Amino acid sequence: MPTIGVVDTTFARFNMGKAAIDEIQQNMSAKIIRRTVPGVKDLPVAAKKLIEEEGCEIVMALGMPGSKEQDKICAHEASTGIIQAQLMTNTHIIEVFVHEDEARDENELVFLMDQRSREHALNVVKMLSRPEKMIKEAGTGQRQGFEDVGPARM
Amino acid sequence: MPTIGVVDTTFARFNMGKAAIDEIQQNMSAKIIRRTVPGVKDLPVAAKKLIEEEGCEIVMALGMPGSKEQDKICAHEASTGIIQAQLMTNTHIIEVFVHEDEARDENELVFLMDQRSREHALNVVKMLSRPEKMIKEAGTGQRQGFEDVGPARM
Amino acid sequence: MPTIGVVDTTFARFNMGKAAIDEIQQNMSAKIIRRTVPGVKDLPVAAKKLIEEEGCEIVMALGMPGSKEQDKICAHEASTGIIQAQLMTNTHIIEVFVHEDEARDENELVFLMDQRSREHALNVVKMLSRPEKMIKEAGTGQRQGFEDVGPARM
Amino acid sequence: MPTIGVVDTTFARFNMGKAAIDEIQQNMSAKIIRRTVPGVKDLPVAAKKLIEEEGCEIVMALGMPGSKEQDKICAHEASTGIIQAQLMTNTHIIEVFVHEDEARDENELVFLMDQRSREHALNVVKMLSRPEKMIKEAGTGQRQGFEDVGPARM
Amino acid sequence: MPTIGVVDTTFARFNMGKAAIDEIQQNMSAKIIRRTVPGVKDLPVAAKKLIEEEGCEIVMALGMPGSKEQDKICAHEASTGIIQAQLMTNTHIIEVFVHEDEARDENELVFLMDQRSREHALNVVKMLSRPEKMIKEAGTGQRQGFEDVGPARM
Repeated sequence: MPTIGVVDTTFARFNMGKAAIDEIQQNMSAKIIRRTVPGVKDLPVAAKKLIEEEGCEIVMALGMPGSKEQDKICAHEASTGIIQAQLMTNTHIIEVFVHEDEARDENELVFLMDQRSREHALNVVKMLSRPEKMIKEAGTGQRQGFEDVGPARM
Repeated sequence: MPTIGVVDTTFARFNMGKAAIDEIQQNMSAKIIRRTVPGVKDLPVAAKKLIEEEGCEIVMALGMPGSKEQDKICAHEASTGIIQAQLMTNTHIIEVFVHEDEARDENELVFLMDQRSREHALNVVKMLSRPEKMIKEAGTGQRQGFEDVGPARM
Repeated sequence: MPTIGVVDTTFARFNMGKAAIDEIQQNMSAKIIRRTVPGVKDLPVAAKKLIEEEGCEIVMALGMPGSKEQDKICAHEASTGIIQAQLMTNTHIIEVFVHEDEARDENELVFLMDQRSREHALNVVKMLSRPEKMIKEAGTGQRQGFEDVGPARM
Repeated sequence: MPTIGVVDTTFARFNMGKAAIDEIQQNMSAKIIRRTVPGVKDLPVAAKKLIEEEGCEIVMALGMPGSKEQDKICAHEASTGIIQAQLMTNTHIIEVFVHEDEARDENELVFLMDQRSREHALNVVKMLSRPEKMIKEAGTGQRQGFEDVGPARM
Repeated sequence: MPTIGVVDTTFARFNMGKAAIDEIQQNMSAKIIRRTVPGVKDLPVAAKKLIEEEGCEIVMALGMPGSKEQDKICAHEASTGIIQAQLMTNTHIIEVFVHEDEARDENELVFLMDQRSREHALNVVKMLSRPEKMIKEAGTGQRQGFEDVGPARM
């Protein structure tokens, strides 16, 4: 049974960690270790600690960057750190970010945060248990949250 | 009793380190080690030295980026370095930045710098002593300084 | 016989990994190990794992960043990570990115993604088997996908 | 007697290294090791070598980024590298950059480059010999070159 | 006799590596090891390999970023990687980039790429054999390619 880390934030406006954990548990037997940090810039080290101190084989890092220009920069810094943490540990950290301004209203924001968290949880399940299924989906225009775009047509 | 590092700057226009230390001491018994550096770009290595040379279990890095375009870039560089320092030490460094232009006047600037320093000090206390309380606040739209936004409503 | 890694994404709208592998196999005997990940930000660690865990001597990292501003930032983060992964392993990772908005329509997008994947596959073959041929092409304005620009004329 | 590194550039339009060294020597007994490199992007490794190969306890990295957009990007890359060098060595590198367009004319440019180099030299002296003095200046709105801004008033 | 690495690209529209090598050989006895890679983003690891696998004491990394917005971002990523490679090896890598849009026409582009490659080759010669000469040029407004700007006048 694999150990999966889940880390989210108190800044986000929806409980993304809970949605992700629910979706994993419906699809796979796994030990899940959860952490919550203040904001997205605290995610990289939290994810790295889950890998190195708690033995997680993969981690989900979930957050909701705000809509201000400064929030976009924070998201960029967080993403850079999440990639760096992966390179330092040779372990995948699946970043699940929903930008507050991707949604037209609070209703859609909740839908999107829930849906994207769940669809990326399914990616985690596939990467752990059926990696060959990922290869079958190569180049098929998958999206998480909103509808898939599909492959380009000639 | 945990050891907490606090590093701030001479560039800032309010004594953020003092506010943070005051708030920690009202809420927890801790040994506090303080440093002050010229500007935000000097924070990453100062924080890392507090962790590796002084044994701090967590560090607060407080600064006030100015309002000029160049100041924004400095803040970005500092934040990137603070994340990198965390990854190199597997230790949280809570960044507390107040951008000078977040406030409408000097009065609000003082309020914001004091309040954000104190609210993040409380995050540090929680992360050290009651991490499960952070999980209870996941996705609840917490903010430091200005009012909380709260969760999105469907 | 060299071992070559190929990693692409489910986000892309064309099977770039398949085109790259086909082109390599038409030009060289090599053992190829393939991975598919969700998006471009997952490429750096996947490439690094192919090098360090699977013994690949070179890796192709293929992706199609979307046309939104946020997608451009993701591509930048991915590229930064791919360079970092190379520096950590002293191994070339040939990045093959086609930005969705480089093409005027889906038809051209498919052409470009196929062509660029194949031309970079040929670069990989040259770098592995005839590196002196690369020196002969120095400064000749080579492009992958669209037509070569050629050297500047005095 | 501490060993202090000073590295500046041939690109700059004022001898910043000389001003910094003069100011240090008026205020402290120190062994100074000087290097000059072409431009600001050569500063990070030069500073790191002064620390690791020459035993410097602190380094001043002085440069004058030009006023073109591309020069701003170079400055950003240099600053990122200077922070990284500090994190790799647990040693402060005080960056002293004067952007060519901060000054209204060549006269002010010379003034600013001289003054900022000297004021940061005094920071270096304080950080080495009276670090508690830095804490006393926390949050007091210190600036190097132009006049101090002072603390915000309620 | 020092070993100098030279790495350039097939993307560039002028044989910069050849110009650099010619200039070095006219001014110094050195063993030169040359590599050519597809584009600027392949330069960092190629330079690092020249240092760590081929024993180069210094490396020149030459490239011509294109004029599109995306090319500017690639150049930034490459530069960041080149600085990182230097920090990982404690070895100077002299970056010689000519942006395609720095020149008004192909004629000037050829001139600039040739001239900047040669002038930076002279910097490499100085840094290896007469480092004290670099200090004498500190703050004198040196430029590579176009005319020197000279020191600011009071």
